[in-house]
Amino acid sequence: MITCSAPGKVYLFGEHAVVYGENAICCAVELRTKVSVEKSDEIIIESILGRTRLDHDTHPYVSYVIEKMRQFVDIPGVRIVIESELPVGSGLGSSAAVTVASIQALNHLYECGLSLEDIAKTGHEIEKMVQGNASPTDTYVSTMGGVVMIPQRKKLELINCPIVVGNTHKFSSTKQLVGNVSKLRSDFPSVVEPILSNIGQISILAEKLVAEGDYETIGKLMNINQGLLDAIGVGCAELSSLVYAARDNGAISAKITGAGGGGCMVALTREDNAEAIAKAIENAGGEAIITKNTAEGVRLESLHG
Amino acid sequence: MITCSAPGKVYLFGEHAVVYGENAICCAVELRTKVSVEKSDEIIIESILGRTRLDHDTHPYVSYVIEKMRQFVDIPGVRIVIESELPVGSGLGSSAAVTVASIQALNHLYECGLSLEDIAKTGHEIEKMVQGNASPTDTYVSTMGGVVMIPQRKKLELINCPIVVGNTHKFSSTKQLVGNVSKLRSDFPSVVEPILSNIGQISILAEKLVAEGDYETIGKLMNINQGLLDAIGVGCAELSSLVYAARDNGAISAKITGAGGGGCMVALTREDNAEAIAKAIENAGGEAIITKNTAEGVRLESLHG
Repeated sequence: MITCSAPGKVYLFGEHAVVYGENAICCAVELRTKVSVEKSDEIIIESILGRTRLDHDTHPYVSYVIEKMRQFVDIPGVRIVIESELPVGSGLGSSAAVTVASIQALNHLYECGLSLEDIAKTGHEIEKMVQGNASPTDTYVSTMGGVVMIPQRKKLELINCPIVVGNTHKFSSTKQLVGNVSKLRSDFPSVVEPILSNIGQISILAEKLVAEGDYETIGKLMNINQGLLDAIGVGCAELSSLVYAARDNGAISAKITGAGGGGCMVALTREDNAEAIAKAIENAGGEAIITKNTAEGVRLESLHG
Repeated sequence: MITCSAPGKVYLFGEHAVVYGENAICCAVELRTKVSVEKSDEIIIESILGRTRLDHDTHPYVSYVIEKMRQFVDIPGVRIVIESELPVGSGLGSSAAVTVASIQALNHLYECGLSLEDIAKTGHEIEKMVQGNASPTDTYVSTMGGVVMIPQRKKLELINCPIVVGNTHKFSSTKQLVGNVSKLRSDFPSVVEPILSNIGQISILAEKLVAEGDYETIGKLMNINQGLLDAIGVGCAELSSLVYAARDNGAISAKITGAGGGGCMVALTREDNAEAIAKAIENAGGEAIITKNTAEGVRLESLHG
């Protein structure tokens, strides 16, 4: 059995603004989805969601991965087992991670010779097939790892402080939130366009600070970015509650990560207070996960097992 | 005994940005401070804060009013009784209201012939004496009433929907918050200056909407303004909690009013849900007050009593 894994991601800066061509900074996190594959008589996909054959409803991403990979190689039967540390539908890029890890696992199993660039590109195509529209960022960062300036895809230095993710467990539709921002921008262009540009400007300022490892100043900019996200209507009570719980308990910074309206927030913390901040997030009703930035994108975990 | 009253105010738009010359819209609310005066053998000031003679610590505003009015008229002895519906130090302009009502009451008692413009100007001088620095807006709006575009002092149409104020009862220092914003602006001019301009731009857009009575659209702009206030660091967990409690229970809009960091938030509501929103604010830990916009600034309540 061949096992590959791919990481999730958080946006340090720039979600939503990136839709309008502004800069964003995205950071792969050491929360991974593992996909194990072995040849079989039939196609079987197993995960906590169930055990199915090719099923676009239960396992849309992996089902489309198999269909897509059949363009490169004959796949008569394969057993695929998915295990993930990433909460689904929470803005941490779980769909990109399962897609990228599946492609790489099948790439190894069938020796397709796909490069990392090929995997990122194929992964994006699959996300578009499932979601109708999708940013290439999640699949790119999950494939390549590290800290990436979007849209240039420039690799920045790693973030060397603990990262605490707080999950509201409140469902939000990325499509709807992106639509809401678009509507607000149409209704109030003279107000909303400058906010989106301002978010982009923050990412540009942050690039230098990431290189310098100046997390305190990065944190101040993340907090400003949080207010700007709230201004464009993608905040909610639950997110705000977790954001302030983190900040009031000593986090360097805390903001929404991803589409907002629910889903997750992200905090940067000091080495010695990640646990305390995770606890504060839990006390405020969220699920906290302590993680860190990872330089490694999709990777081979084992060739046997 | 002569009784005068003067109203408090809420900022619908533009607090903090107004410090940098941007536009703001301030709205007098039907929460009043009453000041009753009668000639006496000595100077006595009575309020819930205590019964004192001229005392710059206990009754700073009224004590300075008496000293200032002595420039116009001989005041050998006077008894002054203060009653207020305005929570002190909560950003609703309680100090301006007590100052303006006191000036007008003494103006009537001693027939000084001060005009409303004189009262607003004298009120501002007294606020500066007590606070070191003070915006002229609070005393102006308390004197004139209505809805006022700052800094032009242009009167706009009245806001004809219920206004619910939510008090966090968390102390905040206006001076410190204004200082924090100034520091953030110095640290990140390319980010913070556009936010402040953007807030001013919102007030300009809102002027026309106030004339049209389009409260739904005014509300959307207030919600954007709220996020921008959060972005410049004047939000806090308590304010955010009351803001979302109001919005999630059907308020047209909800935002911080005043310096932030504590103090009050303000919500516009529909005629039929002001009570429900007040209750939601109370459930979220705030003290709610249902009020409305008032055209009347300082006024004579009674000549005897």
